[in-house]
Amino acid sequence: MEHLSTFATLELPMIVNFADRAHNHNWELDPIVRSLLDTDFYKLLMLQFIWKHFRTTRVSFGLHNRNLKFRLCEMVHREEVIAQFEHVRKLKFRKSELIWLAGNTFYGTRGIFESAFLEWLENDFALSEYQLSEEDGQFRLSFEGPWVAVTMWEIYALSILNELKTRAALKTMDEFELDILYAHAKTRLWGKIEKLRDVPSLAVADFGTRRRHSFLWQEFAVEAMHAELGKNFSGTSNTFLAYKHDLEAIGTNAHEIPMAMAAMSNSDEELKASQYKMLDLWAQTYGGALQVMLPDTYGTTQFLQGAPAWVADWTGQRVDSKDPFLAGDEYILWLESRGRDPKSKLLIASDGLDVQEILSLHAYFSGHILPGISARDFRNAADFTDERKWRPERRIRFSAGWGTLLTNDFRDCHPRNEDGLEPISLVCKLTSAEGHPAVKLSDNYLKASGPKPLIAHYRKVFGIAGVANIPVLV
Amino acid sequence: MEHLSTFATLELPMIVNFADRAHNHNWELDPIVRSLLDTDFYKLLMLQFIWKHFRTTRVSFGLHNRNLKFRLCEMVHREEVIAQFEHVRKLKFRKSELIWLAGNTFYGTRGIFESAFLEWLENDFALSEYQLSEEDGQFRLSFEGPWVAVTMWEIYALSILNELKTRAALKTMDEFELDILYAHAKTRLWGKIEKLRDVPSLAVADFGTRRRHSFLWQEFAVEAMHAELGKNFSGTSNTFLAYKHDLEAIGTNAHEIPMAMAAMSNSDEELKASQYKMLDLWAQTYGGALQVMLPDTYGTTQFLQGAPAWVADWTGQRVDSKDPFLAGDEYILWLESRGRDPKSKLLIASDGLDVQEILSLHAYFSGHILPGISARDFRNAADFTDERKWRPERRIRFSAGWGTLLTNDFRDCHPRNEDGLEPISLVCKLTSAEGHPAVKLSDNYLKASGPKPLIAHYRKVFGIAGVANIPVLV
Repeated sequence: MEHLSTFATLELPMIVNFADRAHNHNWELDPIVRSLLDTDFYKLLMLQFIWKHFRTTRVSFGLHNRNLKFRLCEMVHREEVIAQFEHVRKLKFRKSELIWLAGNTFYGTRGIFESAFLEWLENDFALSEYQLSEEDGQFRLSFEGPWVAVTMWEIYALSILNELKTRAALKTMDEFELDILYAHAKTRLWGKIEKLRDVPSLAVADFGTRRRHSFLWQEFAVEAMHAELGKNFSGTSNTFLAYKHDLEAIGTNAHEIPMAMAAMSNSDEELKASQYKMLDLWAQTYGGALQVMLPDTYGTTQFLQGAPAWVADWTGQRVDSKDPFLAGDEYILWLESRGRDPKSKLLIASDGLDVQEILSLHAYFSGHILPGISARDFRNAADFTDERKWRPERRIRFSAGWGTLLTNDFRDCHPRNEDGLEPISLVCKLTSAEGHPAVKLSDNYLKASGPKPLIAHYRKVFGIAGVANIPVLV
Repeated sequence: MEHLSTFATLELPMIVNFADRAHNHNWELDPIVRSLLDTDFYKLLMLQFIWKHFRTTRVSFGLHNRNLKFRLCEMVHREEVIAQFEHVRKLKFRKSELIWLAGNTFYGTRGIFESAFLEWLENDFALSEYQLSEEDGQFRLSFEGPWVAVTMWEIYALSILNELKTRAALKTMDEFELDILYAHAKTRLWGKIEKLRDVPSLAVADFGTRRRHSFLWQEFAVEAMHAELGKNFSGTSNTFLAYKHDLEAIGTNAHEIPMAMAAMSNSDEELKASQYKMLDLWAQTYGGALQVMLPDTYGTTQFLQGAPAWVADWTGQRVDSKDPFLAGDEYILWLESRGRDPKSKLLIASDGLDVQEILSLHAYFSGHILPGISARDFRNAADFTDERKWRPERRIRFSAGWGTLLTNDFRDCHPRNEDGLEPISLVCKLTSAEGHPAVKLSDNYLKASGPKPLIAHYRKVFGIAGVANIPVLV
């Protein structure tokens, strides 16, 4: 099976590339992170924000596996983790990458990254040290230091661990089985993309960097979406893929900023106000662009109810931990109550989506369904079978951020039906800021993080309106 | 998508093979037939037989498309056909190939090909001229000359036309679509092979050369079968693949010999006797090895009823045009009536098989079914739901010759659901011997060939016992 993947054959004239062959069997490391741009775009936006406002703030991040039954240390060697981490620490932003960050248009705006920041990226950016230990078959990783040196670890560390896990599973297969594995996965992916093709006004983006099967598989998935969905593929959160393939880079901000600002507040009043102070500071930094908020850090319902008037001016919100049907309805009602037209606003869902839910949400909020398919066909859509809630017209601009089930759906693809290729729920979160433990509540009790007594205190301050129990898949 | 199929990436060090790239865009011809061994093994056995007994006999063969609605000339250019045909005519048997024919063991016997024949192959073998014309959107091909110069055209011509048709369909797809197409087809193929895996005592061989999707796809399918089925994969009819991959070469003889001998007979008595005279001559040529007969040329039922006693000594029969459940039952009863033990005999089915029928026939004749599956589960097996006929013990050694649906099942694999990759029913048959038109009756009225008045005469001579109407798929 020597020439399996290229379908070449010995009978055709073929000149051996001796240099290539020799290089292949002398590889020191097959790097997982090929560029410092291989991260979610929002990390770069947040990095500039942190660099501007919190340059000396010290934080810690911690990485752990939420699926305790999957013992990662038994598949992946500590030495491999270290080799990949050290490789990333040696990377520098390349000149052409920095020029692209300076010259490219993001969300329609050029010059989002200021030149002092880009100079700092070029000359002074460096990743912090890390602590790696093992406990109960799980890796424990912690990162401590200046926020600007720690924050970028999140995505590099997650994609490295996920791809090392992938490689470990692939090592148990022979070349033929690998070929079949990818044939199955391509067939699965293509089947999904076919369902999204030709759906009017659909907007779907790749959000799958952190839990991807591998870099190359994410690249394949992104190219497939780009080729087949055309303008309905709105872009990728992966900055390197956006750079390499001329795609829109997608993303604004994440929980770490409100969490850090909350951790550093000095009173319950400051704590409650910090979630809006963060938005204010963001708007000061980036102006009118990039005003998509993430209101669930301490519960969406309390966030919206207590929000200052100007919050309704923001372009939209990303739903990360609430049932997106309920979250969208809540946002629409809130916008109307604040005298805003929801039709001009944006709703982004990004939590464990797959094709069926993307189509359901798109239909529910945008009023565009597939020809011949009635609203009732979307059975797994919460509240969707209630026709009083179904209106065949646009209610809000809906966009799907498709993550793990785009870039790592290898369920039932193994040619011998073995395990090992399922995505696992690795997370890397802020754990403290300036020595104060960080807390996230979210709209899902199961996604809360932080020390338990502090979670209880935060729940007293923010309340628990609208918080639910939703099983976490990925 | 430059490096799609190899999953390479620009970020990894890579040295361009300039010679290879330059060669690729200067290709004169991508040959379909890479070696004169790229033919069914029985053609070589028959060639030696013809060379020994009919060296000066002149014949004609004709090629046509049984699916008239598929207009081959509209997809494939006449010039491409000629270029590929001329390429085959320039090929020679290579020294290493002839040494392999001389030294390899076929059906457990070494030295099946005698050295004078191999010398002739090396020095004197040459393909005849051919006539290519077009009519109603179809190619008409005829080959005339000494039988030893004509017979080998059959498989080369069929696989060339089928692969040119494949290439024409592939030209309409971009690189990404091609990748998905093959992912679909590999998934399909793998699903089939999985069903055959671990079935006790299964014997299945590749018989798919003539209607294959392409040479490389046949090679892939054969390697997949070999890797996954182990000893239950009994070999391939393709001599070149057997040679290249150390597999058993499978096959004995085909209709052209009894047809030619029938055409050359001088009376109805000689005509009727010719079908046995052929077997006698075959046994004289090859001794005890290779005694698998093909009794359906003029109808299996009359063949068995009128057969001389020694015919029951032959090892087995291949069923090509009769319902194989019925044909096997008939053969078993006949063997018992002649005092032979069917359990020691071989039954090979080879007509349009797919996985489900292979499993059904294997269960029906060998008494081995999949664990947990009852005889009743094989619903498409004729007469199989009648439990009186089902006995869970071996009745005869059964072997499946899996053809077109192994090497060319691309149904529903097209990424845009277009047509063009379905197998078509091209056939290349003996049309005359020494100026006398050749006739085949077969066990299926729809598969009879020859001039109509002569078919009628043959039916008078041989009778029509046991002949049925069965739709021809491939």
